[in-house]
Amino acid sequence: MYFADGIKLRDIVEIRDILAGGLNGKEVKIRGAVHTIRDMSEFSFVILRKYEGLVQCVYEEGKIPDFSIKDLREEAAVEVKGIVTEEKRAPGGFEIRITGIRVLSEPARDAAMPIPVSKWKLKTSLETKLSLRLISLRNIRERAIFKIQEGIVRGFRDFMYSQHFTEIRTPKIVAGNAEGGANVFKLEYFGKRAFLAQSPQIYKQAMVGVYDRVFEVGPVFRAEKHNTTRHLNEYTSLDFEMGYIDGFEDIMDMEAAMLKYTLQFLAEEYTKEIKLLGVKLPDVLSFPAVRFDEAKKLVSEKYNRRIRNPYDLEPEEEILIGKYFKEEYNSDFVFVTHYPSKKRPFYAMDDPADPKFTLSFDLLFKGMEITTGGQRIHSYEEQVAKMAARGMDPEDFTNFLMIHKHGMPPHGGLGIGLERLTMKLLDEQNVRETTFFPRDVSRLEP
Amino acid sequence: MYFADGIKLRDIVEIRDILAGGLNGKEVKIRGAVHTIRDMSEFSFVILRKYEGLVQCVYEEGKIPDFSIKDLREEAAVEVKGIVTEEKRAPGGFEIRITGIRVLSEPARDAAMPIPVSKWKLKTSLETKLSLRLISLRNIRERAIFKIQEGIVRGFRDFMYSQHFTEIRTPKIVAGNAEGGANVFKLEYFGKRAFLAQSPQIYKQAMVGVYDRVFEVGPVFRAEKHNTTRHLNEYTSLDFEMGYIDGFEDIMDMEAAMLKYTLQFLAEEYTKEIKLLGVKLPDVLSFPAVRFDEAKKLVSEKYNRRIRNPYDLEPEEEILIGKYFKEEYNSDFVFVTHYPSKKRPFYAMDDPADPKFTLSFDLLFKGMEITTGGQRIHSYEEQVAKMAARGMDPEDFTNFLMIHKHGMPPHGGLGIGLERLTMKLLDEQNVRETTFFPRDVSRLEP
Repeated sequence: MYFADGIKLRDIVEIRDILAGGLNGKEVKIRGAVHTIRDMSEFSFVILRKYEGLVQCVYEEGKIPDFSIKDLREEAAVEVKGIVTEEKRAPGGFEIRITGIRVLSEPARDAAMPIPVSKWKLKTSLETKLSLRLISLRNIRERAIFKIQEGIVRGFRDFMYSQHFTEIRTPKIVAGNAEGGANVFKLEYFGKRAFLAQSPQIYKQAMVGVYDRVFEVGPVFRAEKHNTTRHLNEYTSLDFEMGYIDGFEDIMDMEAAMLKYTLQFLAEEYTKEIKLLGVKLPDVLSFPAVRFDEAKKLVSEKYNRRIRNPYDLEPEEEILIGKYFKEEYNSDFVFVTHYPSKKRPFYAMDDPADPKFTLSFDLLFKGMEITTGGQRIHSYEEQVAKMAARGMDPEDFTNFLMIHKHGMPPHGGLGIGLERLTMKLLDEQNVRETTFFPRDVSRLEP
Repeated sequence: MYFADGIKLRDIVEIRDILAGGLNGKEVKIRGAVHTIRDMSEFSFVILRKYEGLVQCVYEEGKIPDFSIKDLREEAAVEVKGIVTEEKRAPGGFEIRITGIRVLSEPARDAAMPIPVSKWKLKTSLETKLSLRLISLRNIRERAIFKIQEGIVRGFRDFMYSQHFTEIRTPKIVAGNAEGGANVFKLEYFGKRAFLAQSPQIYKQAMVGVYDRVFEVGPVFRAEKHNTTRHLNEYTSLDFEMGYIDGFEDIMDMEAAMLKYTLQFLAEEYTKEIKLLGVKLPDVLSFPAVRFDEAKKLVSEKYNRRIRNPYDLEPEEEILIGKYFKEEYNSDFVFVTHYPSKKRPFYAMDDPADPKFTLSFDLLFKGMEITTGGQRIHSYEEQVAKMAARGMDPEDFTNFLMIHKHGMPPHGGLGIGLERLTMKLLDEQNVRETTFFPRDVSRLEP
C-alpha cells in the first residue's frame, strides 16, 4: 500500500539550488520547457524556461549517443543532465553543459507556435495576445506582470493580517442589487432570479459587527456596456471594512499605510520582476487629500478648463487632478474627498456639516481612480431615512437593515480595483494588459 | 489640506495591550460592542465584545455623573474608560473598573435581538441561525468557526508559496463547460450565453505551462439540485496544479505535506479558537492510499456489504472506507486512487496499465470526500483521442487544446472543498454550519 507522507526528495535541481553555490563543476539534472534553441554551428544553446527564469544549456552534437538536436523541439518539456559551469554572460552567471536529455513531453506533431513567446517583447496586438492568452503568458515579460500582481495581493493581505483584520468570503450569487443601477448580471437560480455580486458591500459591513475589521480579495461583476481601456466586466476587488473609526480619515490612513507597505514588499520580494519590467515604483511618504469641489476648482483654474458637470469627475478631470498633484506636491497619489451625495450609494454617510456631500473618497493614482471608499451610515433610523429620501423601500433591504437595527459601530471601508492598480503601477495603457483573462463586452474567452 | 501618511496613534487600548502587561492599575480607554449586561444589584458586569474576545467591565451605579446603567443597551458600540484590575476569574485574567462610558452608536429604538447571540451556544435551529446569519455570527462560537476556516486558507496559501507555487486568478464567467454535465449555472452575457465556472480547471492547467506550479483560492459554482448536508451550490475551492511530476503520487504527497503544515499552523496560530470550540486536531504522520476497487472489496468484506455500483462510491461506502482506515490504520484520512475512467472527466489520464482506470484520486477525511485530483493528459494526440472516444468535438475545445498542442509538461493537481474540510475538522454534521453564507436550492439570502 502507498503511504503519502510528504514531499519526496528528488535528485532534480532548481535554479535556486545552483545559485546557492557549491554545484559548479558537478553534474546535475534539471527540468524545464525548451524555450528556444539557437544553432551556433559548433554547438547549440538550449534555453530552458522555468518559473524562476531561464537556464542556458549548451549542447555539442555527438555528445549523446542516438540523439540529434534536430529532434529536440521548442516547448517540449525535458530533463537535462549536464555539468554546471560558471558563465558570466548567461542568466544567473552559469550554464549547463549537456551530457544527457530526456524528453518528458512534446507539443503536437506539426504544431507551430502562433506567437513568438520566446522573444523578449511580444510585438503583437493586444487583441492577438489576449486571444492566445493561454500560451502568450509563457512570454517572460507577460508572466512577470502577474507575478507583480501576486505581490500586490500578498502585500495587501499580509498588511491586513498585521492590522488584525479577519479574512472573509462572501457569496457571489446574491438575491439583491446592493450598489443599485442597471449594471448587474442576472442569472437563473432554480427558478428564482439571482444576480452576480457587484461588490461584497452588505456582507463586509455586516461582518464588521462580528470581527470589527474584515477584508476580502475576490471577483466582482459589473455588467457595464462601455468598452474602455479601464473597464472590465469581471475584476478582482481588494476590499476592507473597519469599525470603531473616528472619521473617514482613518480609512484613508489605513489605505496609505497599506500601500506603503505593499510597495516596500514589492521592492523586496519581487525585485526580479520589477527589474525585468523596468518598473519605477512610486516613492510615497504622504498622500494629499483634497475636497472634490476644491479639486475641480484647482484644475479648472490651473489648466483653464471649464467645469461642465459639478457632480461628477470626468476621466479627463481625474487626469488633470493627478497632473496637478504631481506638479504641485510631487505625488502620484491623491485622495479626492467629499463626493456629492447624489453620486454616492445609499449607504454612504452624508457630511453633517453639509449633507449635499458625503464622508467619502476616491484615491487617484497617476490620474485614475483605483479606490472608492468612505464612512457608512451606522444608525438604523438614519439609514432608513436615506433610503426613503431616495424612493427606496426599506422592506427590500430587511437583511441589510438587520445589522443597523441590532447595532453597528461607526465604520467604513473601501474597494480597490486590483487590475487598475497594477495597470497604473506598470504604466500600462489598457487594463486588459494587467488582467489574467479579461472579460469585456466582446470578450468571453479564453 | 489633509495628508494621509499612515495609521494615527490613538489612546485606545486593545486586549493584546492589556495582556502584554504593565497596565494594571492604570486608567485606559477601550472600545467594543456591549455583548451583555448583567445586573448584580451592587454593581453590573458590562461585557464588551471585541474581535480578540470578551472584556469584563464592572460598573458601580453613581460612578459616572448623569449616567445610569439602565440607559446602556446591549449591542451598542461604546468607548469605556476604566482602571485595569487583575481578576483571575475574568477572561484574560483582568477586568476594567469603569470610570466613564461614551456611547459611539446604538441599535434601533425598540429593537430586540431576535437571537441570543451572547449565549455561549446558540441553541436554535440551523435554519434560524442561517436566516439571521448577518447577526448570528456575532456569537463567539459561531464566529470562531470562520477564524479556523481563515487559518486553513492561510495555511494552504503559505504552504503553496513555500513550495514555489504562483497564485493565479481565473475568470468566473466563462464561455464553456469544462467539467461537463448539466450542473452549470447559465447567465446572459451581452446577448451571448455564458456560464459560471464549475472549477478553474482549464486555466490552472494552462498556467502550469507558464509558472510550472500554480494555485488559486476562489469561488466555484455547481447548479446541483440535490439538497444534502454536504452539497453547496457555491463553495470555495482550494486548487493547485503542478508540472514536471513523475506520477500522480507527487500530487498526493504535496497535499499530505500541505495538510500536515496547515494542521500545525492551526495548532500554533489559532489556539484560542481550537480551544474555544474544543476541536481535536487529527495527528497525521502518513496518509494511506488504497485503490478504488480494492477499497470497495475491503469494506464489502469487513462490513458485509454488497457492492451495488462498481463504478462509483456511494456516500455510505465512503463512510465505511473512512471507518476501515480509522480502525485498521488509525488514520482519519485515506486516499482512494484509480477511479474508473468513465466516472472521471475527459482530461483525466488513464492508467497505461489498465485504461479502464485513471491515475486519479479522492481524499476522504473522516469518511467524506474533501478532495478530487489526479494526473492530467499532457499529450495533444492523447487528449484529442479521449475526447473523440467520448463523442466530444475537439473543435469545441480549441482554447483548451491550444496548451497541449504547444507543449505541456506532465502535470496534475487537485481541488479541495474548503467548507467540507472545515466541516469534518470541526465534526459538524452539515456543511452549512461551516459556510459563511450558504447557497443551496432554497437559500439565496442573506
